[in-house]
Amino acid sequence: MEGAETMSKYCFGIDIGGTSIKCGLFNIEGELLEKWEIPTNRDNHGEAVPQDVADTILDKIKEKALNKDEIAGVGIGIPGPVNKEGVVLKCANLGWGILDVAKKMEALIGLKVFAANDANVAALGEMWQGGAKGYSDVVMVTLGTGVGGGVIINGKIHTGSNGGAGEIGHITVNTNETAMCGCGNKGHLEQYASATGVVRLAKKIMEEEKIESVLNSVENLTAKDVFDAAKAEDKLALDIVETFGRYLGIGLSHVAATVDPEVFVIGGGMAKAGDIILQAVEKNYNENILNALKDKPFRMATLGNDAGIYGCAKLVLTSLVS
Amino acid sequence: MEGAETMSKYCFGIDIGGTSIKCGLFNIEGELLEKWEIPTNRDNHGEAVPQDVADTILDKIKEKALNKDEIAGVGIGIPGPVNKEGVVLKCANLGWGILDVAKKMEALIGLKVFAANDANVAALGEMWQGGAKGYSDVVMVTLGTGVGGGVIINGKIHTGSNGGAGEIGHITVNTNETAMCGCGNKGHLEQYASATGVVRLAKKIMEEEKIESVLNSVENLTAKDVFDAAKAEDKLALDIVETFGRYLGIGLSHVAATVDPEVFVIGGGMAKAGDIILQAVEKNYNENILNALKDKPFRMATLGNDAGIYGCAKLVLTSLVS
Repeated sequence: MEGAETMSKYCFGIDIGGTSIKCGLFNIEGELLEKWEIPTNRDNHGEAVPQDVADTILDKIKEKALNKDEIAGVGIGIPGPVNKEGVVLKCANLGWGILDVAKKMEALIGLKVFAANDANVAALGEMWQGGAKGYSDVVMVTLGTGVGGGVIINGKIHTGSNGGAGEIGHITVNTNETAMCGCGNKGHLEQYASATGVVRLAKKIMEEEKIESVLNSVENLTAKDVFDAAKAEDKLALDIVETFGRYLGIGLSHVAATVDPEVFVIGGGMAKAGDIILQAVEKNYNENILNALKDKPFRMATLGNDAGIYGCAKLVLTSLVS
Repeated sequence: MEGAETMSKYCFGIDIGGTSIKCGLFNIEGELLEKWEIPTNRDNHGEAVPQDVADTILDKIKEKALNKDEIAGVGIGIPGPVNKEGVVLKCANLGWGILDVAKKMEALIGLKVFAANDANVAALGEMWQGGAKGYSDVVMVTLGTGVGGGVIINGKIHTGSNGGAGEIGHITVNTNETAMCGCGNKGHLEQYASATGVVRLAKKIMEEEKIESVLNSVENLTAKDVFDAAKAEDKLALDIVETFGRYLGIGLSHVAATVDPEVFVIGGGMAKAGDIILQAVEKNYNENILNALKDKPFRMATLGNDAGIYGCAKLVLTSLVS
């Protein structure tokens, strides 16, 4: 293996999700050369996943006639907490318990493997080639079914002492809440800023305000309906977006007072609503934060569903220089 | 200077406060050999401070007949934001504007100088030789006239992109607050968890509850009065301490969800109240935090007013190994 690193030309980024596993082959300059997906087999506590990932990588190496010496390694994103050493602490989504996934995968693939949490690698990907390109102290928040987060410090993922850093969705933003968060606590950001959270907020505000709105006649209301109506200046929808922005802005003000990032990046499915989200969050962030921390840039994520594979590739490349 | 580092035997830790400048001479094993204080001359925007500090260090070197080659450097704590490069961004307490204090002091003393924020160096000191000894991911909160904080990651101060990391006192913990924080915002932690904050809380709760209490007859009520009464199981005082603990516990839960430290350390003048503070905070922290982040150790700071000079010395020593 001596001198192997200087010969590296490629790396793999593998983002394991609950439904599918996204795979990318990158060159070490950061170009995504090819991407593909395989289904996630969750049977028997996801026991087949490591072998499935190994097989798809080894198949790709064969297909492309690559030499293993040319491959710097494999980065893997996991939908659960991963500690500093790359050990998965628990992964309810896949059914995994404690697993040294990097070690296990290295044995199966015969390449250096690095593992990290999926929200954290997405943040790293956005820093490297996405909305936060050019920055090295970044906080990313992902607004999807849940609310995830990633904290990047000096260009590297900050995992925290037990893989719990960047759990932005579980910051308490409303101590008066009576409804339960998925985690069993009350008043966490995820209850207001996730896709289901926005719908819950919408129903509550519709009930309270009882004013005319296009939303009143929508069946199976979604967060997209709310943001679309707000863009068309529907008063009720604007109130919902303002409330969403207040909770998210306050949550991010807590994060800033703790780590003082250079930039915030907002991603996830709901972020497709665009500028209306940035504006609502930025305004409320600035209203709650200390002067010295005001006016930080808020950027949209640009890599979409590929943020994870980019970040996984960067995990490998960062290891080459540290 | 070649090889000078291997000859290092001593370093200085200098903690500049608004009233006095605390100075310490340490050996590189971490022993405080001697400490002394000089007054802070705030005349003309504190312009004499750098020379005063240089003079006291040079005097000590002469008095002890030390050789400059034996001295690893000088660490300086500043009561204001300091960026990654050691540049003071503003120091209202001393009257300083933007100042590259390390560079200025190096010219005056002829030794390597490192500067950081005072709350941050106190956290570093407690990690090195105090309540968080043995840990390397530490969050310290200082409860005094104000509420300060310091975030230590991998054994080093995390300053943030603009010196604003660890501004725990300015985390919003009550969005219903109508009174103003010193910083101009509303509902910040400092309004409830500083010495004046506890007195303010006490008066508010006394007014609301109107129940019998030893506190009703105390003139010029202090935070110490409140904690003393609570230790004697005065019902009203216990309610005040519980409210204080709720705000501080929630504030620290935000910090944990962002950086996931190994341990929290609580210091500052008010921390002298002891275990009653740890208990109130710990209970409320655990009630608000995600399961994965529950049950972190909460420790009392042990270095008292010397935390700053210890941390300043450690600033110098950390630079020797990085």
